[in-house]
Amino acid sequence: MGTLRIKETCLYVRDLAPCRAFYEGIMQLECFSHSVGGHVFFRAGQQVLLCFLKGTTKEQTILPPHWGEGALHFAFETDRGEAYEAWRKRLNEHDVSMEHEHHWPGGFRSLYFRDPDGHCVEILEAGMWEFGNTGP
Amino acid sequence: MGTLRIKETCLYVRDLAPCRAFYEGIMQLECFSHSVGGHVFFRAGQQVLLCFLKGTTKEQTILPPHWGEGALHFAFETDRGEAYEAWRKRLNEHDVSMEHEHHWPGGFRSLYFRDPDGHCVEILEAGMWEFGNTGP
Repeated sequence: MGTLRIKETCLYVRDLAPCRAFYEGIMQLECFSHSVGGHVFFRAGQQVLLCFLKGTTKEQTILPPHWGEGALHFAFETDRGEAYEAWRKRLNEHDVSMEHEHHWPGGFRSLYFRDPDGHCVEILEAGMWEFGNTGP
Repeated sequence: MGTLRIKETCLYVRDLAPCRAFYEGIMQLECFSHSVGGHVFFRAGQQVLLCFLKGTTKEQTILPPHWGEGALHFAFETDRGEAYEAWRKRLNEHDVSMEHEHHWPGGFRSLYFRDPDGHCVEILEAGMWEFGNTGP
């Protein structure tokens, strides 16, 4: 049995345009699919971030239905140090408010902020979860 | 600026015990943190799957609050061919009902099934999203 890797992470959003502007324009993810009134899909490293317009997947029949409400959380990872600082600077330049910066054991840091739908987005310094951390 | 990779994918669950039994016992993910009444965290390749007990993160103050309702979707990836077939066999042996098998352009396949909370889980043959697919 091969080990499973996570490939798709999903969000449910109220409006695709600001979602795309945020993840493509500010977070610099490649948008590889935009179905008007349906979804915007992005590449993030070897993974994909799938953002679905709320309601469109709840009653679907070609693929199994799924849906979500709330302020979901997920995290990006970036290299430790300079790359992390560059992301802080870029977010600041684009007026993305920092909600919190967390300092994890081992000296790893993470930034928390909100996307246009209020989802809780984090950028984490690589290595934190491999250091032995088990939570806050 | 370094490219962002997705590191954490999150679910919100009603009961941690069946969640752990499913993702550790059947999906063979390493459980590296279990906080009773709080969360169970798993490794999945280079990523982590964070399962939070519903309600516990909605009002939290040390880290920014987040929460989710619904039948969320995410996907695992496994190697094409034998590894995929081994997963189908294992899920069948553990009486996990297959909700759907999808055939994607390029000959890639994916299996859809539900976790104990009704979240929509997929196992996808590696390469599908690199082949040029943009959705169903």
